[in-house]
Amino acid sequence: METLPEIPTRTQVGIIGGGPAGLLLAQLLHQQGIGAVVLENRPRARVEARQRAGLLEQGTVDLLREAGAAARLDREGLVHEGVLLSYNGRRHRINLSALTGGACVTIYAQTEVVKDLIQQRLAQGAPLLFEAEATRIEGLQTAKPLIYYTYQGEERTLACDFVAGCDGFQGIARRAAPAGFFKTYDKTYPYCWLGIIAEVPPSTDELIYAFHERGFALHSMRSSERSRLYVQCAVTDTVEDWPDARIWEELHARLGTAGWSLREGPILEKTITPMRSFVTEPMQYERLFLAGDAAHIVPPTGGKGLNMAVADTKTLFDALRAWYQTGDGELLRTYSAACMRRVWRVQEFSNYMTELLHLNPEKSAFDQHLQESRFQLLTTSPAASQVIAENYVGLAAQRAAAPLAPLSHAL
Amino acid sequence: METLPEIPTRTQVGIIGGGPAGLLLAQLLHQQGIGAVVLENRPRARVEARQRAGLLEQGTVDLLREAGAAARLDREGLVHEGVLLSYNGRRHRINLSALTGGACVTIYAQTEVVKDLIQQRLAQGAPLLFEAEATRIEGLQTAKPLIYYTYQGEERTLACDFVAGCDGFQGIARRAAPAGFFKTYDKTYPYCWLGIIAEVPPSTDELIYAFHERGFALHSMRSSERSRLYVQCAVTDTVEDWPDARIWEELHARLGTAGWSLREGPILEKTITPMRSFVTEPMQYERLFLAGDAAHIVPPTGGKGLNMAVADTKTLFDALRAWYQTGDGELLRTYSAACMRRVWRVQEFSNYMTELLHLNPEKSAFDQHLQESRFQLLTTSPAASQVIAENYVGLAAQRAAAPLAPLSHAL
Repeated sequence: METLPEIPTRTQVGIIGGGPAGLLLAQLLHQQGIGAVVLENRPRARVEARQRAGLLEQGTVDLLREAGAAARLDREGLVHEGVLLSYNGRRHRINLSALTGGACVTIYAQTEVVKDLIQQRLAQGAPLLFEAEATRIEGLQTAKPLIYYTYQGEERTLACDFVAGCDGFQGIARRAAPAGFFKTYDKTYPYCWLGIIAEVPPSTDELIYAFHERGFALHSMRSSERSRLYVQCAVTDTVEDWPDARIWEELHARLGTAGWSLREGPILEKTITPMRSFVTEPMQYERLFLAGDAAHIVPPTGGKGLNMAVADTKTLFDALRAWYQTGDGELLRTYSAACMRRVWRVQEFSNYMTELLHLNPEKSAFDQHLQESRFQLLTTSPAASQVIAENYVGLAAQRAAAPLAPLSHAL
Repeated sequence: METLPEIPTRTQVGIIGGGPAGLLLAQLLHQQGIGAVVLENRPRARVEARQRAGLLEQGTVDLLREAGAAARLDREGLVHEGVLLSYNGRRHRINLSALTGGACVTIYAQTEVVKDLIQQRLAQGAPLLFEAEATRIEGLQTAKPLIYYTYQGEERTLACDFVAGCDGFQGIARRAAPAGFFKTYDKTYPYCWLGIIAEVPPSTDELIYAFHERGFALHSMRSSERSRLYVQCAVTDTVEDWPDARIWEELHARLGTAGWSLREGPILEKTITPMRSFVTEPMQYERLFLAGDAAHIVPPTGGKGLNMAVADTKTLFDALRAWYQTGDGELLRTYSAACMRRVWRVQEFSNYMTELLHLNPEKSAFDQHLQESRFQLLTTSPAASQVIAENYVGLAAQRAAAPLAPLSHAL
């Protein structure tokens, strides 16, 4: 019988999913001498190729530094002190830094964060298995849960003390609890984003989020050489409905303002992203802890998906460290409660930004006027801009560092 | 043929409606020596008995003082520097004064404002006709519009330079424009307010707006001896569905918090108020100018109905004064544009407060959680509380004093 000594059969924390939450959790535990195995069901190349968000809150940057995974981020990340909102061609700058006592955001793609964390983990010789597909979890009510997974054509098991479900919205972790244990809440929006990466220097120093009567658009960037651009499209659209010329035409119209022009360049990639809000509550079942997209999805408008995953990871890491270092399980027991208030705050902010900036033909004319008035308020009330700034730079992530008291239904 | 010399047949400004907008406009014009006739279709006793809102913004108080109509208001009005919001029994105070650089609100019933203005006008011997029912308006496109009305059983006419339509939502003024000229926008809410006046000193020094899982409630006051209280009820409810005991039971449950109790007293009056938002745009047709409820309705949650009427009146008065004193019609031509941005701001705020504080069974569980998170934000972000404070004390009314530039569709 062939033995594969490099494949561990037991660990302290079994982590399902090698996205940012799983990889960062593994690294933070590793730094504390706590063992973890990361099971990722896709090949490394696919994990590293997935284009996602690219906006890091200060708290996210800080935690990546703490994890020793920020060397390239610190070299290549673009620090932004403000963000531009546009309404039918009129722009309003939210001075993030001035409105939050110096906080900033950093533009650095999630893909790059993931590459950095993978490289770091493999360089450490720490267990990270690609194409390792977790199929089920057993024994969550015992002190030794067991993760079943297939790897290199064989069914295997991983025994652990705790299971971290970091396997995204489609993952299996959430399904390991009894039916109905996790309550779920969701909302879908009647539009999607068509996103492109273009080989052209960004036409703006700061992100531009634009409402336009033709629909939402966003000008972001990947680097000083590559632009990341989005246009609102119909839920029934496919990338075939969007030839390059149509994309640029809409971007010019929606992002345009007097005295500014948008540079065009070769489009390297086109993808359509659905807009959805999803929440699982609680985020723990016995020895299973959910983090990131496994527990919640936000529409991308606020740039919160990655940051929320990182905030969950920090809360879970603090709880696991306390358990392993002092035997105190209090933070594990309050993990879900500590996360949920932040989760709903981030959901509310993401929903607010989404509804502020998109054209929603299902809205009544009355509600469309309220939307315009909400935008105008930002241009006249510094307090209203401050609410956006605080949420945008990551009020929530900062709070998550110190877990909140468990929430009763009342406030 | 009997002559009635005291009934004028011509004036400068014909005012339809003897509510706060019409009466205050008449008085402001009177102070400048500009003639006006107020036609009110109800008897004086009914006008003076109608219970409406009771919250005056600072700008409203200032204008009533300017009009010389604030002597009793200054004696009897209750100045409030803060307001309490409650969420399932947990209270959060919005320090209006601290968050707005010293602004306050004054509790003084609209009914009393109307009584004061009527008394003032009659004491001046200025024309104010009760039971004078305007039936149609002609010649709005000419320099001498004609208001037809019935009075003391006879059809009469009033020739004027301008017509002020201050005759409320059900009034005839809005219908004098060609069909389709005024665009209208509206929204109805799936709940009503049951309001009572109780012969009992208020149980609170400041207003309490309460969200509760049983529904909204509001503790306001009329004076140091009378409480004004509201509970959210179903749109199909009648006052017969609400015996006194049920009202008090709901008020105790919804307003209650530890260490506080609600005093009960005889209920003097019970009324049900529907919740509706309504906007007419523009607010001018030729020589007809709409003000107050004739142009827009807000749900009562933000206390804005009277204040918006007063802000319209101030803008219209400034425009008429400029016309009569200098012959400059620019402010008349821009009247509607000057009002509309404020109107939508007030609509948005009233809608925000309404949706923040009511139980809406039509909302998804997801949206109900967002509602809770929006409330929590107020307790953690002074900026978020400041946005409420600025709108509550009347950011809008202050702005209206200096008419805004005409609004293009773009911001």
